[in-house]
Amino acid sequence: MIGIFDSGIGGLTVVKAIRQRLSAYDIIYFGDTARGPYGNKSFAAILDNLRNGLEILRKCGAGIIVVACHAAAAAVYDPIGPRFDLPVLEVVSPAAKLALRQTTCGRLGIIVTRATIAGGLYAKKIGELDASARVYSLACPLLIPLAEEGWLNHPITCMIVKKYVHALKVRQIDTLILGCSYFPLFRRIIQTKIGRRVHLIDPSLAVADSLAQFLDENAAVNGRLTRNQSLRLMVSDFTDQIELAARMILKQKVRLEQCSG
Amino acid sequence: MIGIFDSGIGGLTVVKAIRQRLSAYDIIYFGDTARGPYGNKSFAAILDNLRNGLEILRKCGAGIIVVACHAAAAAVYDPIGPRFDLPVLEVVSPAAKLALRQTTCGRLGIIVTRATIAGGLYAKKIGELDASARVYSLACPLLIPLAEEGWLNHPITCMIVKKYVHALKVRQIDTLILGCSYFPLFRRIIQTKIGRRVHLIDPSLAVADSLAQFLDENAAVNGRLTRNQSLRLMVSDFTDQIELAARMILKQKVRLEQCSG
Repeated sequence: MIGIFDSGIGGLTVVKAIRQRLSAYDIIYFGDTARGPYGNKSFAAILDNLRNGLEILRKCGAGIIVVACHAAAAAVYDPIGPRFDLPVLEVVSPAAKLALRQTTCGRLGIIVTRATIAGGLYAKKIGELDASARVYSLACPLLIPLAEEGWLNHPITCMIVKKYVHALKVRQIDTLILGCSYFPLFRRIIQTKIGRRVHLIDPSLAVADSLAQFLDENAAVNGRLTRNQSLRLMVSDFTDQIELAARMILKQKVRLEQCSG
Repeated sequence: MIGIFDSGIGGLTVVKAIRQRLSAYDIIYFGDTARGPYGNKSFAAILDNLRNGLEILRKCGAGIIVVACHAAAAAVYDPIGPRFDLPVLEVVSPAAKLALRQTTCGRLGIIVTRATIAGGLYAKKIGELDASARVYSLACPLLIPLAEEGWLNHPITCMIVKKYVHALKVRQIDTLILGCSYFPLFRRIIQTKIGRRVHLIDPSLAVADSLAQFLDENAAVNGRLTRNQSLRLMVSDFTDQIELAARMILKQKVRLEQCSG
């Protein structure tokens, strides 16, 4: 199966993208709702939680794992990735690559959480690919609870988005990465507030493409993955509100299993 | 020492109140920042975390523990309280008692998180004390990240508070309990939006009074508590942002120790 890890249920945006891109494959999801969201957590805490989540997905039969949580991407890149016994992809590298393909002026904005900025993987990846690119990172922590509350089109959400993106607008960016698994849910509002000329990068689409390419190039991994279009959703803490939010993202009835490893 | 447990650093409002009321006593604080906030967590997850936190405080020398987190209060009441080997006080019971003393019309509002509503302790306590009282509970989850961000007087915070309290205003309450350890930080805005005639109940002051009374009545416990005016602050996950927020609440320089038990 394709395993997908996230700090909560925001990573279901990545599930959606992967199901659209690779519809036949079985998917198993683990959202660490008992310890998430990770946006204000330290690297050490995120690393511990990530190790636990990857282990759960491996035990449940994942043959490859996609980490949907941007805050955990730096820890996937180093130290997890090279030492884990399954291939582990993260969302930051493909999003950074796609953003650099899209920009014409070389001025990129990234909206993220504090932990993602502290992890530094966006700055590192973009710097490696194009040392002349200018990167403006902005932590937007309030968007996570707004998503969890389902206030996707609320007037207050519009005001908060406007306040946040103003800081990037004055930087005259032409490309903006939605650097948290929840943020694609605000795509329409963000586009309105930042202006139509700014190209938005949805990392869930970028990582789905990257996964498809990886499977094309790695027949051994691809051959081990089952293809029955199934979707199994696990969380480390279950509440009705979490199930509601999951339903809102996937736009279908869902059943969440509780699993703490 | 007096131990104080919270899901994060919001419980420092209780530390402030206890230091004002019982200034000589040594205080040790544990904020579960690695797993908090608890507002959207299940009872089972909160119970596990609470057990871990109480054990840490006991090992570090607490002789009595005050649980500042409203979401954990129901778990303190049952099953923790009667079975733990130290006295454990929670914030809900004294706040409920004080609210019933203040109300004249018997219509009470409580602003809380979802986990506190699910725990049901406010409804239970108020029902036991005055079966005729009408209680209107409202979950205000967005106030927690606003506090963590330090947006205490931001225009967006005013709008969100206005939207929340409107639902209680139409119920014609005369008393409102600030039922989350962070909410006393918004006291001024809440008072403005709900109207001057509504009496606000700050549970941190209520639990400080309740603790003072408990110590008056329990000489054995009181005699074991040291009195050097010291304050030790521990968190299960440390970041600069958490230290900043702690400083904002206590209005003094603080040093947080990391401790996961």
